[in-house]
Amino acid sequence: MRIALDAQGTDRAPQPEIEGVLSALASWSGPRPDIVLVGDRAVLEPALLEVEDRPGAEHLEIVHAPDRIDPGEAPVTAVRRRNASSIVAGIRLQKEGAVDAFISAGSTGAVMAGSLIHLRPLPGVDRPAIGTLLPTAAGPTLMLDAGANVDCRARHLEQFAHLGHIYAQDLMGLDRPRIGLLNIGEEPEKGDELALAAHARLAASPSIHFVGNVEGRDIISGACDVLVCDGFVGNVLLKFYESVAEFIVGLLRKEVAETGSEIDVRGAFRVLDYAEYGGAPLLGVNGVTIICHGSSTSRAIENAVGVAARAVAKGMVGHIARQLPGLSGEAPGDGATS
Amino acid sequence: MRIALDAQGTDRAPQPEIEGVLSALASWSGPRPDIVLVGDRAVLEPALLEVEDRPGAEHLEIVHAPDRIDPGEAPVTAVRRRNASSIVAGIRLQKEGAVDAFISAGSTGAVMAGSLIHLRPLPGVDRPAIGTLLPTAAGPTLMLDAGANVDCRARHLEQFAHLGHIYAQDLMGLDRPRIGLLNIGEEPEKGDELALAAHARLAASPSIHFVGNVEGRDIISGACDVLVCDGFVGNVLLKFYESVAEFIVGLLRKEVAETGSEIDVRGAFRVLDYAEYGGAPLLGVNGVTIICHGSSTSRAIENAVGVAARAVAKGMVGHIARQLPGLSGEAPGDGATS
Repeated sequence: MRIALDAQGTDRAPQPEIEGVLSALASWSGPRPDIVLVGDRAVLEPALLEVEDRPGAEHLEIVHAPDRIDPGEAPVTAVRRRNASSIVAGIRLQKEGAVDAFISAGSTGAVMAGSLIHLRPLPGVDRPAIGTLLPTAAGPTLMLDAGANVDCRARHLEQFAHLGHIYAQDLMGLDRPRIGLLNIGEEPEKGDELALAAHARLAASPSIHFVGNVEGRDIISGACDVLVCDGFVGNVLLKFYESVAEFIVGLLRKEVAETGSEIDVRGAFRVLDYAEYGGAPLLGVNGVTIICHGSSTSRAIENAVGVAARAVAKGMVGHIARQLPGLSGEAPGDGATS
Repeated sequence: MRIALDAQGTDRAPQPEIEGVLSALASWSGPRPDIVLVGDRAVLEPALLEVEDRPGAEHLEIVHAPDRIDPGEAPVTAVRRRNASSIVAGIRLQKEGAVDAFISAGSTGAVMAGSLIHLRPLPGVDRPAIGTLLPTAAGPTLMLDAGANVDCRARHLEQFAHLGHIYAQDLMGLDRPRIGLLNIGEEPEKGDELALAAHARLAASPSIHFVGNVEGRDIISGACDVLVCDGFVGNVLLKFYESVAEFIVGLLRKEVAETGSEIDVRGAFRVLDYAEYGGAPLLGVNGVTIICHGSSTSRAIENAVGVAARAVAKGMVGHIARQLPGLSGEAPGDGATS
């Protein structure tokens, strides 16, 4: 197995990238994958020299791609013009079959656009979606779409449900993942036009285990394993959650500092630590693309490498390619919005 | 001033209601309002006898309305049929001019439906909205709509912005409240069709201080005083926030219990306590309607009485009635979704 990693993605690249893959390789069980670091050879060669004695370092390679797409750039334009960027080069490695997966903590928009343009959506997938793991009291819940698609229709939400179903089976070890629809009430007749139409489709879908509507208050108790929503709500919710967790932990740190308490803030809130979950998969493209935060630590990169490797080993893309095209035959009438 | 309070709204009614109004009256500055407790006389009379010596108790009256609308009932049907319910009776008291405001911790849907049917929306308001105060690092932010309206159009969001502007001026003491639009990016060209069209309208609105798009991650830092969104996103976000705050505080309590730390959990997180903010106003109807949680404590009821009284004293309804009808002349083209 070969996994490409954007070596100039994080805010402090390439240090978290290199440390992350080395940690992953050091603790690998089974045959180690080869890791292709995609970035500026002038930076990466001396960095790798420094770590050449570490376990697994012989599995590191460099592909030279000196250009870097900034998070502020218009994604589609950047992807079309910047072939020497680490993002485009890494995605093309996968397209050409030189690697099995690509991980980047660079511009989310560019990774998404590059994957759509070069890898293409799988048959039966109108719109690939970003899946992201939300920490809950009962373990992580996969929420999708986390921001790739606004103005969705019911059939898109139905596709997200099936993408999430397959991810949860392959990556989260769940035989029969509980699929929930984010909504403003539990009853099937609650919600906006999109939610009503999506509910009807999901309820009529025999190949997934639909548990109905999930309200904002039920997410955190772990009411479902896969939470389906459009990318607008999902993006707002994800960013809000991250910031609220930071805010509340900050309040606590202040209190701890003022009182001289010896409470272990980090330990108490480990469940909220996104680094534990690795990156967010872009589900529905013909390949394995994992998107990480720009602020990713080496621990987050390490976990993202694990997620990418499991997706490849399980054959997740093949599972999606087999299940999704069947949906159009499965669905009932589409309601007002699709 | 006379304020009606649904005396059978909270889960433990009438205790939090009676204690709440007595606390409000005891600490009142200026002439005390009369409080009309709307509920079952057979329950309320003995309860009031027990507190007749408390300061302000002489300002309490009873209006007999023995029927109670359950939160699970279909709101419009319940409101049309149940004239003897405390919710309908209380709203009709306001309609008839017998009181200046109505507060209820009962069925949110019924209070909303009753207010729409009996009080009616003010001229220029297509859809009244629920405003709710979100705790942030910089004090409360008013978010609206928190769930009264799904499938909004841009002109509705524009109206929400002006309703919030007036509430923030009258109730939050802000001369020039910062109005933000909830969106998935800061740039004006980000968002779904609704957000794009709403942004154009808000940016062209001279009578409010529009500060642009606010992302999910910026809410908690207090990026705006009034956050405008449709009722679907707002409802999801509100319920999620309440549950996350509970979850995180729960994690902390566990840690505190395990370590024997003497940290003051309640004190550290007082800013997150919804009870501090009183109820949520239904803005845009011809009257003052304040909606409280069913789980409201006496402290929450006390604060809701304060909010209702300030809204009446400031003439909030008159301000809305003057400002909103002018909007149709102020707005530019409406974009695709309105």
